Amino acid sequence: MKKVTIKDVAKDAEVSVAAVSKVIRSAYGVSPSLKEKVEQSIKKLGYRPNTSARGMRGRTFTVGVLIVNLGNAYLPKLLEKINATLSISGYKMLIGLGQSELSIESSLIESMMDSNVDGLILIAPRLSDSALEKYAKQIPMAVVGHIENTATSFDTINGDDFLGAELATQALVETGIKNIKMISQPLREFNKVDLNQERERGFLHTLTKANHNDVAEDRIFRVSNNEDELKKELALFLDEQTLPCAIFCWSDIHAIPLLDECIKRQLTPQKDVFIIGYDNTPLASYAMVNLSSIDQQAEQQGELAANALLERIKGRNTAKHLLVEPSLISRKSH
Amino acid sequence: MKKVTIKDVAKDAEVSVAAVSKVIRSAYGVSPSLKEKVEQSIKKLGYRPNTSARGMRGRTFTVGVLIVNLGNAYLPKLLEKINATLSISGYKMLIGLGQSELSIESSLIESMMDSNVDGLILIAPRLSDSALEKYAKQIPMAVVGHIENTATSFDTINGDDFLGAELATQALVETGIKNIKMISQPLREFNKVDLNQERERGFLHTLTKANHNDVAEDRIFRVSNNEDELKKELALFLDEQTLPCAIFCWSDIHAIPLLDECIKRQLTPQKDVFIIGYDNTPLASYAMVNLSSIDQQAEQQGELAANALLERIKGRNTAKHLLVEPSLISRKSH
Repeated sequence: MKKVTIKDVAKDAEVSVAAVSKVIRSAYGVSPSLKEKVEQSIKKLGYRPNTSARGMRGRTFTVGVLIVNLGNAYLPKLLEKINATLSISGYKMLIGLGQSELSIESSLIESMMDSNVDGLILIAPRLSDSALEKYAKQIPMAVVGHIENTATSFDTINGDDFLGAELATQALVETGIKNIKMISQPLREFNKVDLNQERERGFLHTLTKANHNDVAEDRIFRVSNNEDELKKELALFLDEQTLPCAIFCWSDIHAIPLLDECIKRQLTPQKDVFIIGYDNTPLASYAMVNLSSIDQQAEQQGELAANALLERIKGRNTAKHLLVEPSLISRKSH
Repeated sequence: MKKVTIKDVAKDAEVSVAAVSKVIRSAYGVSPSLKEKVEQSIKKLGYRPNTSARGMRGRTFTVGVLIVNLGNAYLPKLLEKINATLSISGYKMLIGLGQSELSIESSLIESMMDSNVDGLILIAPRLSDSALEKYAKQIPMAVVGHIENTATSFDTINGDDFLGAELATQALVETGIKNIKMISQPLREFNKVDLNQERERGFLHTLTKANHNDVAEDRIFRVSNNEDELKKELALFLDEQTLPCAIFCWSDIHAIPLLDECIKRQLTPQKDVFIIGYDNTPLASYAMVNLSSIDQQAEQQGELAANALLERIKGRNTAKHLLVEPSLISRKSH
């Protein structure tokens, strides 16, 4: 196997070497059609920019991406978009699993730094604000799913979680059902504001606005992160509800097993139960599931995160805090 | 944050430093209870063995894992078990996405080698046998989902795909349905034997044995890997079938959308259609899906692969080729 060079890319794309170089450097004045042509050839040939040729000594052209685990079907789209966006600039993504444990997150980040990744993208990290700042001072960093718009050393990319919860809750209010609940996850130890709390705030705010008089924290039912426990807890939750009941779930990873438990009990969606999830995971759109869900535009978030990191690697050092607008995808579960 | 040392682990586990060292080195004579105690403390504290202290200079204690993409729900269990098994010996896993493209696979493997991973686990790679041998001569390697039991430079870990297909096909034969088909994926370019062809062989063999007289390749319908195309192709496939029809799918990633399309058409499982998938993905067990599927023991494969690689890193250089026995999980789709 011969190493693919910039000349091979230029030849394949039928453009000059200088033009390929411009696309790789994301230089100004590159037309969309040139960009597309070159990117296709880079992908086709598997071209990996040579460090020295790009005048960036010591770069490894790898980016470390930290995720919690692989159990959430929301992640594939996000990660694949990050990968696609990074690969346009010749970067490879290496994923590590933080498993919701602080000590594992820290040691993974350190392992990634030891292996000289050029930057980090952290997705819903557990680490405290100060720990994130500490790492961000050592390496370019973008963080997805962590609300901290005062951070100065790293960028944040989030969905507008308050708005997403508002959209879901408002749709449940409009069903006319009075017993409206939220399934949420455990509060985190270190972060004062996380995306989950934003969703809880949006939920409670919308109920209050709709004159649900008894709005209080007991409208929120927190389940554990353990998969086996989850099923039992959701069954227990359903045992306690007066039907009909409307439920906003902070994630499809709760909404789908909840809907499944309802179907096991022969409860009818849109009559006995009204359910809306979050993340619009691929499964939600199946005819046999048909789950309404908030789409937080995973692909857009992935692209923004990858581009923010690439800008930081190139030298930007002022922080950007980006918010992506979600939307409600209505199906037959509410 | 202070670095966690072997002394901290020993203290937490209430054992001697020598005992912790024994567990880390997977030395002989370690009792299961000692192993468990120490592993729990390692996990709890996030301990990362110090390279020099372990007398293995230059090690990074990271392992590169190559997967095709994140779209297959079979992967999380496999990857999480690899991760858990590696972490016992203080290794971290970094995952890269090969996206079913040879050029991307090669450049990812090279990136991983550039960043000094101590070994590689490849899952269902597209690379040819000779390309795999080439890399395996440079770095310890274990390969999952690639049948090549004559390889001398690396280990292979596979489910018994022929047997899995036999179990599924035999169950379909026993329904009494005559129109039995298989949904498979495109043939690969380079490998003479891949797991998919083993499943096709098992399928055809079982039908022939059951005196289905017209058994031929046209019993096999190959769909593309593109997600959007897939739905159209499965609909087309169903259009052409005489009902009742029994279908063995080489993967749940085809069986689930196929079942969904049947439900959209108001076809009844166990009457109009009989479907068995492969991989027993988490989704299959939901009441609203209820898909029969072959379980190929992803967790066992993950553990075997991680342990094989760890042995190679420690110096074993004879090849092991391991086969894991699958089983049929019967649900209400067949």
